[in-house]
Amino acid sequence: MSVLFADRIRFFDTTLRDGEQTPGVSLKPEQKLEIATKLAAIGIDVIEAGSAAASEGEQSAIRLISEAGLPSEICTYVRALPGDIDLAAEYGADSVHLVVPVSDLHIAKKMRKTREQVAEMAYAAIKLAKERGLIVELSGEDASRADQQFLNELFSKGVQRGADRLCFCDTVGLLTPEKTALMIPPLAKIAPLSIHCHDDLGMALANTLAALKCGATCAHVTVNGLGERAGNTAFEELVMALEVLYGYQTGIKKEEIYHLASLVSRLTGVPLPVNKAVVGEMAFTHESGIHAHGVMREPATYESIKPEMIGRKRRIVLGKHSGSASVEAALHEMNYSTDEAQLKEIVKRIKQMGDEGKRVSDADLMAIADAVLAIECKPVIRMRQFTTVSGSNMIPTASATLVVNGQEITGAATGDGPVDAAMQVLRKSVGDVADIRLEEYHVDAISGGTDALVEVTVRLSKDGKIITSRGARTDIIMASVEAMIAGMNRLLRETHEDRGKNPR
Amino acid sequence: MSVLFADRIRFFDTTLRDGEQTPGVSLKPEQKLEIATKLAAIGIDVIEAGSAAASEGEQSAIRLISEAGLPSEICTYVRALPGDIDLAAEYGADSVHLVVPVSDLHIAKKMRKTREQVAEMAYAAIKLAKERGLIVELSGEDASRADQQFLNELFSKGVQRGADRLCFCDTVGLLTPEKTALMIPPLAKIAPLSIHCHDDLGMALANTLAALKCGATCAHVTVNGLGERAGNTAFEELVMALEVLYGYQTGIKKEEIYHLASLVSRLTGVPLPVNKAVVGEMAFTHESGIHAHGVMREPATYESIKPEMIGRKRRIVLGKHSGSASVEAALHEMNYSTDEAQLKEIVKRIKQMGDEGKRVSDADLMAIADAVLAIECKPVIRMRQFTTVSGSNMIPTASATLVVNGQEITGAATGDGPVDAAMQVLRKSVGDVADIRLEEYHVDAISGGTDALVEVTVRLSKDGKIITSRGARTDIIMASVEAMIAGMNRLLRETHEDRGKNPR
Repeated sequence: MSVLFADRIRFFDTTLRDGEQTPGVSLKPEQKLEIATKLAAIGIDVIEAGSAAASEGEQSAIRLISEAGLPSEICTYVRALPGDIDLAAEYGADSVHLVVPVSDLHIAKKMRKTREQVAEMAYAAIKLAKERGLIVELSGEDASRADQQFLNELFSKGVQRGADRLCFCDTVGLLTPEKTALMIPPLAKIAPLSIHCHDDLGMALANTLAALKCGATCAHVTVNGLGERAGNTAFEELVMALEVLYGYQTGIKKEEIYHLASLVSRLTGVPLPVNKAVVGEMAFTHESGIHAHGVMREPATYESIKPEMIGRKRRIVLGKHSGSASVEAALHEMNYSTDEAQLKEIVKRIKQMGDEGKRVSDADLMAIADAVLAIECKPVIRMRQFTTVSGSNMIPTASATLVVNGQEITGAATGDGPVDAAMQVLRKSVGDVADIRLEEYHVDAISGGTDALVEVTVRLSKDGKIITSRGARTDIIMASVEAMIAGMNRLLRETHEDRGKNPR
Repeated sequence: MSVLFADRIRFFDTTLRDGEQTPGVSLKPEQKLEIATKLAAIGIDVIEAGSAAASEGEQSAIRLISEAGLPSEICTYVRALPGDIDLAAEYGADSVHLVVPVSDLHIAKKMRKTREQVAEMAYAAIKLAKERGLIVELSGEDASRADQQFLNELFSKGVQRGADRLCFCDTVGLLTPEKTALMIPPLAKIAPLSIHCHDDLGMALANTLAALKCGATCAHVTVNGLGERAGNTAFEELVMALEVLYGYQTGIKKEEIYHLASLVSRLTGVPLPVNKAVVGEMAFTHESGIHAHGVMREPATYESIKPEMIGRKRRIVLGKHSGSASVEAALHEMNYSTDEAQLKEIVKRIKQMGDEGKRVSDADLMAIADAVLAIECKPVIRMRQFTTVSGSNMIPTASATLVVNGQEITGAATGDGPVDAAMQVLRKSVGDVADIRLEEYHVDAISGGTDALVEVTVRLSKDGKIITSRGARTDIIMASVEAMIAGMNRLLRETHEDRGKNPR
C-alpha cells in the first residue's frame, strides 16, 4: 500500500468534551479524572477535558484534570470570547481548542455576523490566549462547508498572530474522501493540522483516514465514537484501522482499548453497541456454524484482529445457526461425551430453541444434553413457594421455601429492592450446601409497556466454575428467580455428579 | 464531485441472513415476513431471506416469504453443496447467493481443500442451480484476501457456466478504499458485481462506496448494520451517503427508513445504538447550548439531513451543556414566562442537576421553574401508602392509598408482574380525575448487580399533552412509581391551573 502518513500521528481525544455533549450524558469531575487518567495511560497526546464556560462542574473537572500531573496536554474548548479564555487559563489548562465558525451559513445564520467580524474575534482571542500562556489550536467550525479562500486566509493570519496549530472541523459530517483530498492539502501546509470529523453519514473514520493521508497530522477522536448526534471518529476504530489496514504503528497501548471502552461506557451510561467494530459485544462472538467451525480451525478465517490484541476474548455462542462442531466443542467443555446420533439430536433441539426466538444459555444446553443422553438430572434445588413484598415505608422482603437435596428450607431476606431481596433469600437458602456467587446480573433494556417481556441473564460461579443462565417473564422478579434457580441447579449438579460416564 | 456511479444501483438486503447471524438474534418465520414486506415496500431489489440449510424455521421462513408475492427478488444463501441448492429450490426462492471460499486461507484451513476442488464444487453448484431454474449470484468469500488471478478465473468460468451475477465479499472487513480501487474494476467487467462488506475495522460503508465508484452495481446491506461480528454495511447509511454526499437518487422511500430501522430493532431485540448515524436516538437530538441555539435559528447549521426526510423528528433536550436559548424555548412551550434573572437562575439549576450526573426530564424542568418563579405547586396526587406482593402461584398485586385532590382513594390492582400491577393501581386511582395514558415505559439496561440503580422513564399523555418523567432507585417498582407520580402531578397541575399569569 503506497499510502503515506505523518511519521507520528497525534491523537486528540474529545470524549470528555464532544463525547460528553452526547445528549443525556453527564460526567462528574471525579469521573472525568478517571477517564482522563486512562486516556493518558493509553497514549493520547491531547485530552480535551471540557468546556469551562458550560457549568461549574466543568470548571472543577478541568482544574482536577489539569492538576493531576498527567503526561498528556490538557486542552479546553473555548469560543472566541475573552470570558471563555479567561476561564481556560484560570482553571489551569495547557491549551485551548479555539472554535470559530467559518462557513457563511454558521457566520450569518448562527452568529449573525460577517466574515470580517468573526475573523477579528478569532485574532483577538488568539492574542489573549497567547498572553495567558496557552497553546492555541485554531479550529474552523463547519469548515467542510466554508469558502476555501476564506479558510486559507483565516488560518494563515491566525498562525501569524500566534496560533500554534489548526483544526478542520467537519461539524455535521458532510465530508467525503474526495472532498477531503481537495480541501486538506493547502491547509496542512500552513501549520500542523488536526482533523475533527462527525459520523452523521457514517463516514467519520474514512474521512479522518483520508485527511491523515493528505497532510493532517493529528486526529480528533472519542472513545466508542461518542459525540454530538451520531458522534465523532471512534478512537478504537481509527487505531485499529491504521495498524491493521495500513500497517502503521500508532504507539497506542492497544491491549488497554477494551478496558478503556468499557470504562467510558459504564461512566457515561451509553451502552456499547452490540455490533460496534472493535468494542461491540458481538465483535468477537461467533454463532453460525460455518463461522464458528472456521474460527475453531483457524481464527484468522473470520477475525481481522486477534481479540487478545485489544484485551478481549473470543466467544462461541449457540443458536439456530450453530453447526455440530461448535455444539460438540461446548459439550466437551462441559464434560459430556456423545455419539454422532446424540450430537445430531442435540443440535436439532438447539436449532428448535433458536427457531422459537430464544437464546441458548449454558444451562439450556445442559438441560438439552441431559434429556438427549437420558441422564436423569434430579434438580438439587426445587422451589416450593416464593413471595416478595415491597412498597413505600417498607423494607423490600422476600421469603421462600426451597427443597435443597430433599431437605425443606424456609428463609427470608431483605434487600435494596424486591429483586435484590429475592436473590438474597435464594443464596441464603442454599448457602449451607454450596457457596454460589452471583458474578453478574443483567437485564436487557425494557421498552414498550409494563407488560413487556423482561429478559434476565445471570452469571453464577462456584469453585471457579462459571455458568450463564437466563429467565424471561413479564415479571422481573420471577424472571430473576427462574434464571437463578436454573443456574444454581446446573452448577450443583455438575459438581455433585461428576462421577458417571456421562457426564465426565 | 466527479464521482460516477452506475445509472441504477441495486440494493441486496441481507438483514434476514447475515443480519440474523448476529449472535443471539433469532427471528421467527412470521417476523421475517414482516421485515421482508417492509424491505420490499421501501425499494429493496433483492431480499436474502435466510439459509435453508440452517434450520427448519429458516425453511418455513423462506417458503413464507417466497409465497408472499413481494415485488423483490427472494434469494437464499447456499454453500456449493447439492443439498443446499435442493433446499433453496424446494422452498421457493428465486435466486441463490452461492458462497464459495476463495482465499487460500479459507480454502486450505477451513475447507481443507485445494483451489481446484473448490472451483469444481462451485461449477457443479452453478450447473445444478441453473437446472433448478434459480438465478445465481456467485460470491467469493474472503475475496479481499484472495489471489486476484484465481478470483478472475473462477468468476469468468463461473459466468461461462451460467452464473448470472458475481459478488465480492470482504468477509472480515479488511478492505480499504485503495485496495477496493485495485481489485474491483477487473471483476466488474466480467458480469454485474455486488459488493458485500463487513465493518470489523469501521470501513464497511467507505469500502462499499469505493466499490460502487469503480464498477460494482449492487450493494449488500443490512438494516441498522446488523450482521456477523461488527455487522455489514448499514442500509440507511449507504442510502443517505449516496443521496446527501454524492447527490445520487437511490429511488429508496427514504421517509420509511426510521420506521424500518425501529421495526428491525424491535423484532431482533438489538437496540438502536445511541450515537448511530441516521437511526440512533441522538442523531437528531441536541443538548449543548451552541448547537441547540444554532438549530433553533437554522437547522442546517448542525444537521446534515432534515430529520423529516427519513421519518424522524428533531429533539432538544436539557442538561448541563444547555444554554439559555433552549431553556427559554422549553419553558415557553410549557407556558412559563420568565424575566432574565429568573431564566438565568433556572439555567443555573439545570446545569447543577447535570453536574450531578442527572438527566433533566420535563417534570424536572417544571419543578425547577416552579421553585424559581415561586409558584406554589400543590401536588394533585400524594402517595400515602403503597404495597406490592408477588411470588410463585400468586397473582402480582399492588395496593395504594393516594390523596387525589384532597380526597383519599384506596385501591388495588393486579398485573402481569409487580411493576405492571403498580402502574395499574396508580392509573385506576386517578382514573376518576383524569384520563392519563402511559404512552411509553422504558427501563435502561441494568448491569452489574441486583443492587444497581434502576432508571425508569415514562411518557404520559392526557388530552394530547405529552410529558416525560423519570425515577431512579435501586428498587425497580419504586422507581416506576416515582416516575409515574411525578409525571401525573405535572400533567394534572398544568391542566388544572392554567389560569394564573405564571404559568400561562
